[in-house]
Amino acid sequence: MLKVDLQYAKLQKDVLDYQEQVTAAHNDLVNKTGAGNDFLGWVDWPVDYDKEEVKRMKELAASMKGKYDTVLVCGIGGSYLGARAAIEMIKGLYPSDGIEVIFIGNGFSPNYIHQVKEHIADKEVVLNVISKSGTTTETSLAFRIFRQFMEEKYGKEGARERIYATTDKARGVLKAQADKEGYATFVIPDDIGGRYSVSTAVGLLPLALCGIDIDALLKGSADAREAYRDPDLKKNDAYRYAVARRILDQQGYQAEMLVTYEQQMTMVAEWFKQLFGESEGKDGKGILPTSACFSTDLHSLGQFIQQGRKILFETLLYVKNVGTDSLFPSDPENPDGMEYLAGKELSWVNRKMMEGTLSAHTEEGNVPAILIELDDNSAYAFGYMIYFFFLACGMTCYLLQINPFNQPGVEVYKKKMFALLGKE
Amino acid sequence: MLKVDLQYAKLQKDVLDYQEQVTAAHNDLVNKTGAGNDFLGWVDWPVDYDKEEVKRMKELAASMKGKYDTVLVCGIGGSYLGARAAIEMIKGLYPSDGIEVIFIGNGFSPNYIHQVKEHIADKEVVLNVISKSGTTTETSLAFRIFRQFMEEKYGKEGARERIYATTDKARGVLKAQADKEGYATFVIPDDIGGRYSVSTAVGLLPLALCGIDIDALLKGSADAREAYRDPDLKKNDAYRYAVARRILDQQGYQAEMLVTYEQQMTMVAEWFKQLFGESEGKDGKGILPTSACFSTDLHSLGQFIQQGRKILFETLLYVKNVGTDSLFPSDPENPDGMEYLAGKELSWVNRKMMEGTLSAHTEEGNVPAILIELDDNSAYAFGYMIYFFFLACGMTCYLLQINPFNQPGVEVYKKKMFALLGKE
Repeated sequence: MLKVDLQYAKLQKDVLDYQEQVTAAHNDLVNKTGAGNDFLGWVDWPVDYDKEEVKRMKELAASMKGKYDTVLVCGIGGSYLGARAAIEMIKGLYPSDGIEVIFIGNGFSPNYIHQVKEHIADKEVVLNVISKSGTTTETSLAFRIFRQFMEEKYGKEGARERIYATTDKARGVLKAQADKEGYATFVIPDDIGGRYSVSTAVGLLPLALCGIDIDALLKGSADAREAYRDPDLKKNDAYRYAVARRILDQQGYQAEMLVTYEQQMTMVAEWFKQLFGESEGKDGKGILPTSACFSTDLHSLGQFIQQGRKILFETLLYVKNVGTDSLFPSDPENPDGMEYLAGKELSWVNRKMMEGTLSAHTEEGNVPAILIELDDNSAYAFGYMIYFFFLACGMTCYLLQINPFNQPGVEVYKKKMFALLGKE
Repeated sequence: MLKVDLQYAKLQKDVLDYQEQVTAAHNDLVNKTGAGNDFLGWVDWPVDYDKEEVKRMKELAASMKGKYDTVLVCGIGGSYLGARAAIEMIKGLYPSDGIEVIFIGNGFSPNYIHQVKEHIADKEVVLNVISKSGTTTETSLAFRIFRQFMEEKYGKEGARERIYATTDKARGVLKAQADKEGYATFVIPDDIGGRYSVSTAVGLLPLALCGIDIDALLKGSADAREAYRDPDLKKNDAYRYAVARRILDQQGYQAEMLVTYEQQMTMVAEWFKQLFGESEGKDGKGILPTSACFSTDLHSLGQFIQQGRKILFETLLYVKNVGTDSLFPSDPENPDGMEYLAGKELSWVNRKMMEGTLSAHTEEGNVPAILIELDDNSAYAFGYMIYFFFLACGMTCYLLQINPFNQPGVEVYKKKMFALLGKE
């Protein structure tokens, strides 16, 4: 399902040299004895998740089927990026099922809010608000505006059927509000942080509302959990990737560029940047996470990668089979000189672009590259992939002696902003 | 219209120390005597552009008005990012005029091509293909597929009315094909490179087809050209920014994060990354261009910026007035604790977020920040802004003794890819 290839990574140390540290850190992860162990709920989540709740999500989606064409997802950070990454990766950017997903509550832009309201005025809408405490400013602000929109559109009673809150199981203002209004509620577990939460209700409910097979996603994560239970670096790809990052960091590479090869994977890269940047970027440490989508960005960032300052390595996330393939058509007159590709599969062309670029960057550009190949873009593959990255992220941070599961720096802007907004 | 503020930039040298170098480089730019001077056509373009051609673009858009609801723009790199950046910045992400723009020819993804074809099957479509030579693989591949689509949908004759080619004025396979088929053609000037081309037909035709005031855009660039004719660093903001980048580079900051504050500005950041990355990233030099959109990414990259490795500075591109503002509504029951913002303009909230974050990052995070404030998101402002960045980019590269107008590294992947594709 997922394969890590380090042959282009230009590592000056042997990955296997880290076995002892990796085994110790692995034990800290799976036994929940390491730093931040209050937030290790994701480790066993793929087998321990609340089956009853997943059933409720599927039933809710089924009961509403045909009654909506627009899903508003109101959340920020981990309550935004995971669902968006999954939906775009799995369904593509122009899915044909007629369901549009719009993400709100992830900023303050008045024009965005205004345009979304106009855009959905005549649509049939459901709204999923996602916040652990209900005090996330961006999300609460948008939720108040769009809750009023829903009540004006459907009445109090109608809105009740169409608003779903994913929040704390018992505490917080959103839970209280949802209970008072009678919204269906789903749980954000106490021991899983935002960026590790896409396989909880945080991601699963939006996915279910978009018609995605959430059981398959969970199965993918469960199978990855099984596959990576042995910390042996000869076979554990998640840990091999984690160690390779640390070796490259020591070799002076201060930025990692996650490269994807389909525009529908762009948000997976954004999700990745949160996962690694927020987990690792503390105590003055961490690799700066960046991203690119090839071949699109070969015509923008390609020059810098090829010949610019040597501060980055690439992590190539190549998905072998994505959606519908097709053959490049023939045109015997050949007005464009492209006839040499006639009859070739477009996926083959895309693959050759990946291979050619890998060679250009690693051989001539001297840029290290870690190649991750994923079989396809199914919900199962997404579930497998996220578990791979969760585990790799936990490991790579433990190797750096960083707690991967807190984010103290995020509070700083909030405090400053609240002072300026006049919040008590 | 545009103001650069360096008070948060933590510069350890005085910008004014660079006056002599800047004046010399300025003369090289405006007299076209510096490196890459074959590609300095953009310097006087805002006054020298072909008025007749701009008139033709407006007439074409007017004559087709009401006959299309979908604009396909087929191009990559500079023939993609500029138009997309402008359209999204000026019109927003959910404009209400019913015109959808879809960008093709900027990658090989078969699923993307398949989904776009399905998506537009019942739409009324016009297609603008953009390539200087007509041999850009991504663009030629998509153009063959979508030209056939257009001919199947509208017939040969009908397609002729709906396909427009922006290409070389005389040479190349696309020009030959367009002349043979009778497509309207528009010119990519010989002395303006892709990433400096958005105010030529490359960007202007897609913009005109989207109902954007292209005269205003050109006027904005012309006024910026006028404003920055004096290289005096006491008043030339483009050069002050250019110098500040170099000082920060010398202080050890190896990455620049362009920060925007509206999701509709996200593609401006992508355009910026091409402009600076492709201009500066050569000879092992250059600042790695990255981007973020706040407050969205405060919940993903914020932690890294605040407390992670200190390798980046921020360039904040804040647009003061974007589209429609509104007041945060009251809810006397205050279920969400947000009543303290009732009656406040959302743009004010967004501004306070910007100010709070600036303080958090620069004071507590010790991250240098260059603040650029732009008055609004009009076509005029866009035109002004791009000229500012063009000039700043040319200057900052000349100060680094880099030719800003070539991109030799982009050829490397192409050569490798062609070998794998079996192209002669």
